[in-house]
Amino acid sequence: MRQAVDVLPFQTHGPGLIEVTNAVQRWVASQGMADGLLTIFCRHTSASLLIQENAAPEVRADLLAFFDRIAPEGPDLYAHDEEGPDDMPAHIRAALTQVQLSIPLIGGQLALGTWQGVYLFEHRRRPHSRQLTVHLFGA
Amino acid sequence: MRQAVDVLPFQTHGPGLIEVTNAVQRWVASQGMADGLLTIFCRHTSASLLIQENAAPEVRADLLAFFDRIAPEGPDLYAHDEEGPDDMPAHIRAALTQVQLSIPLIGGQLALGTWQGVYLFEHRRRPHSRQLTVHLFGA
Amino acid sequence: MRQAVDVLPFQTHGPGLIEVTNAVQRWVASQGMADGLLTIFCRHTSASLLIQENAAPEVRADLLAFFDRIAPEGPDLYAHDEEGPDDMPAHIRAALTQVQLSIPLIGGQLALGTWQGVYLFEHRRRPHSRQLTVHLFGA
Repeated sequence: MRQAVDVLPFQTHGPGLIEVTNAVQRWVASQGMADGLLTIFCRHTSASLLIQENAAPEVRADLLAFFDRIAPEGPDLYAHDEEGPDDMPAHIRAALTQVQLSIPLIGGQLALGTWQGVYLFEHRRRPHSRQLTVHLFGA
Repeated sequence: MRQAVDVLPFQTHGPGLIEVTNAVQRWVASQGMADGLLTIFCRHTSASLLIQENAAPEVRADLLAFFDRIAPEGPDLYAHDEEGPDDMPAHIRAALTQVQLSIPLIGGQLALGTWQGVYLFEHRRRPHSRQLTVHLFGA
Repeated sequence: MRQAVDVLPFQTHGPGLIEVTNAVQRWVASQGMADGLLTIFCRHTSASLLIQENAAPEVRADLLAFFDRIAPEGPDLYAHDEEGPDDMPAHIRAALTQVQLSIPLIGGQLALGTWQGVYLFEHRRRPHSRQLTVHLFGA
């Protein structure tokens, strides 16, 4: 049993779901482990993680529209607005999704379902440099 | 320190919270470990995981009603409808709950609180065969 | 590779986000590990966990207001009310946030981002004694 840890950087360009499945799988493969547990940790409070369907792109557009409806921008809704009107909705959308995901590794493969992709969920309008910490326990 | 991994199958019959606590605990007990960390991973994007009160059944009915209100079906709400009107609400409800849960194992028992049960949350109307991957690290 | 487990108690005084970052970090430091994975597990169904911005206090007030709006108290909204009008909204708010968080440990430090704090999210009005189980794997 051993462990490995690293930081994977991603550049974002406005609100949206950025698939990180391949980048994460490549890092896992480079560690040469067969079985274990991968943990992905998002070091931000206005971006988050989500596992969602990786087939129909309309699913991702509908998800974005849902989070726009449930946690809209609005000058009268929030006391915290000094970082811009998209900042507080970003914190709420991050709170409603995930900051951390752990996925079993079996026979060298992440145990994702056929239709599951791992996404970095950017909630801010401006481009951001984001970091995901990846940690792997295994053998 | 060693690890074990398996896939537990569950059959669902429409939207609802199916308690999986006992099935998961039986699998954990069969591994003969005293202390460790159990991870449950749901390999689907229209079913999810939730730890909730295992006493009053009204809690589960109220939870279902809440998710119906917050992410309703509706022909005008979503672009993605080719898999049926209950598909996109299912993806949203899965995004708002959990795809993965990790629970410490202490003295051979999962460290669940007295009122906590582990549930598979089915979001689709039709019966589905669902799979939960279980992974245990420990000694 | 070894593991450690403990239970950290916290007293709450009504709805709010109670920062537990320092208490958790002190426990981690006392284990003398350099690298590993910390898991925090909340043993309750009307309190939960959240990683959020630790700077502007308005963020926490806005988050509370959001959850009040999305899962309000209301005599006509829920069948489950025998434990008080704040009980069912508490279960819903717990379902929408986290019961468990895992955070990588790197070089003796939790891999939290600069602006991330770990919070116990109390959803009930009355004071409660809450317990967080902490589990650490590492070397």
